[in-house]
Amino acid sequence: MKKRPTIYDVAERAGVSKSLVSLVLRDSPRVSDAKREAVLEAVTALNYTPSRLAAGLAGTRTRSVGVIIDDFSNLWFVEALAGLRTALAEGGYALSVADASLNAHLGIDPIEAFRALRVDGIVLAGEASAPAVARSGVPAVVLGVRDLGAELAELPVIASDEAAGGRLATMHLAVQGHRDIACVSAPGASAARRERGYCDAIAELGLTPTVVRAPDTGEAAAREVAAELLARAESAQAPRPTAVFAVNDPMAVGVIGAARELGIAVPGDLSVVGYDDSPIAAYGLVSLTSVSGDPRELGEAAGQVLIAKLEGGATQIASRSFTPRLVARGSVAAY
Amino acid sequence: MKKRPTIYDVAERAGVSKSLVSLVLRDSPRVSDAKREAVLEAVTALNYTPSRLAAGLAGTRTRSVGVIIDDFSNLWFVEALAGLRTALAEGGYALSVADASLNAHLGIDPIEAFRALRVDGIVLAGEASAPAVARSGVPAVVLGVRDLGAELAELPVIASDEAAGGRLATMHLAVQGHRDIACVSAPGASAARRERGYCDAIAELGLTPTVVRAPDTGEAAAREVAAELLARAESAQAPRPTAVFAVNDPMAVGVIGAARELGIAVPGDLSVVGYDDSPIAAYGLVSLTSVSGDPRELGEAAGQVLIAKLEGGATQIASRSFTPRLVARGSVAAY
Repeated sequence: MKKRPTIYDVAERAGVSKSLVSLVLRDSPRVSDAKREAVLEAVTALNYTPSRLAAGLAGTRTRSVGVIIDDFSNLWFVEALAGLRTALAEGGYALSVADASLNAHLGIDPIEAFRALRVDGIVLAGEASAPAVARSGVPAVVLGVRDLGAELAELPVIASDEAAGGRLATMHLAVQGHRDIACVSAPGASAARRERGYCDAIAELGLTPTVVRAPDTGEAAAREVAAELLARAESAQAPRPTAVFAVNDPMAVGVIGAARELGIAVPGDLSVVGYDDSPIAAYGLVSLTSVSGDPRELGEAAGQVLIAKLEGGATQIASRSFTPRLVARGSVAAY
Repeated sequence: MKKRPTIYDVAERAGVSKSLVSLVLRDSPRVSDAKREAVLEAVTALNYTPSRLAAGLAGTRTRSVGVIIDDFSNLWFVEALAGLRTALAEGGYALSVADASLNAHLGIDPIEAFRALRVDGIVLAGEASAPAVARSGVPAVVLGVRDLGAELAELPVIASDEAAGGRLATMHLAVQGHRDIACVSAPGASAARRERGYCDAIAELGLTPTVVRAPDTGEAAAREVAAELLARAESAQAPRPTAVFAVNDPMAVGVIGAARELGIAVPGDLSVVGYDDSPIAAYGLVSLTSVSGDPRELGEAAGQVLIAKLEGGATQIASRSFTPRLVARGSVAAY
């Protein structure tokens, strides 16, 4: 095992004194730009992270944790935050949240804002900031995001197995007797994993896959591609699907909306399964069967891992994968 | 006009030196609990706010602004943040966001976490933290929340006129020929203002008001009270309303869900108007006519006011009220 780099290693590489490194880590204004740059270059190159003790002595501990998400309008993170709170309560850490666009007006990545605020640790729950977090050297854990690339390969990842979730949704429809099951998918790594689970299940069942991809992950785009898919029966090019798996809940609502416009009853003539078990799935008008990745449980696990890093100085922590579950409601009927 | 208190006034009242006050304001650990308490008591009593210059000299400027909201799952704030960003880009301020429950695990108010992070200013966009913000002495502006009580009477309030919004929704239904217009309301100051607008319009029109109040602001609670209201026709105690104004969009979706369960067509047999113009209102399955408070515009105005306070040291800034507008979709028909 490689020896953990110390502040002396950073000082040597940067050609400065240990106390100057300490000043840079505290964001002191009393440092020239050239020296600051040399120190930060050395911190990155050596992958240096201040130990808890050293940070404590240098007065840089704020007992706060920054959470970086991609988008505040994705409500998944609200539940994940509740789990993080449970875990971080023990260590007495305060939480701050930023999304990728929160400080876009400054042209800076959220990690930069959190560094300026001297957070002790980072929970990375979005894809956009991954490279910047890797460069920052701030102790971090990845929540709910996979395959972030080699830069972040050493960070522990706490995530739900989304391919298993896509498989689960598809099998649920097959067990109800459906054979013409389509998938309404979207761009992005998360949608791709859910779609792969669908394809795996369809292959396993010996059925024919039908995947249509909307241009984005929103309701309107899904409504449009679903309308095309469902209207196909008219031209008899392909059998109309009797069931659809949509890779998120707003897209599933789009599918239901398209069906309604065409006079296709849900679940009478078409069964629909969504993903994420968001609040809208439980609305009476929607009553959507959905896959839940239990974000609260994930958040709690991520908080525990981060505390282990911050308090114990642990460097090698295993990633953890959680299996999603199905939440049955009124949008699926037997075929 | 009262003279603005200085750091010397605080030091004199607390019985300590000016530099000790400065240490406390920088959250230095090198201060005894007793002295820290005395200084914070004096800061509160004198309503002391460090001037920009003094703060700059003391090294306490972080060029960051904290936004306090009640609940991350209310998407109103996502648009308001976009407006804030536009305004704060000029001053180069970074943004952080916290909701009332984000640091509930520590038993501290979000304002305390923001003080620890040394934010320069606060945007208060929720009701829960109002008293703590008033005590904190951090320069603040109130966004979207009214009637916070005498403690905060001196803070500028940038808000939408929600009574005007309730009136607008009701008048829109009346113009379409509806005479039996009910209001599905909820607890909370915001719902109360929207309901008051409804009542004012109904009185002005010489109609009879029907207000039912759900136990909370959610979809399920609204669905339940709407089901009761719409089933009344059976017992012939009162005419069934031909139109409903719900005080937020999820509640309006609850009303539509209840109507559907009872075989009442929307908008054929029942017109529905919601409030907030949230993403769900634009979903094809929902297609909800709603009132928009233009949170982006509000956010931008609030950011401008905060910059005026932080940069110009302005102490007397007028509050501003914005008039909401109606966004017509498919949930209203002529009677």
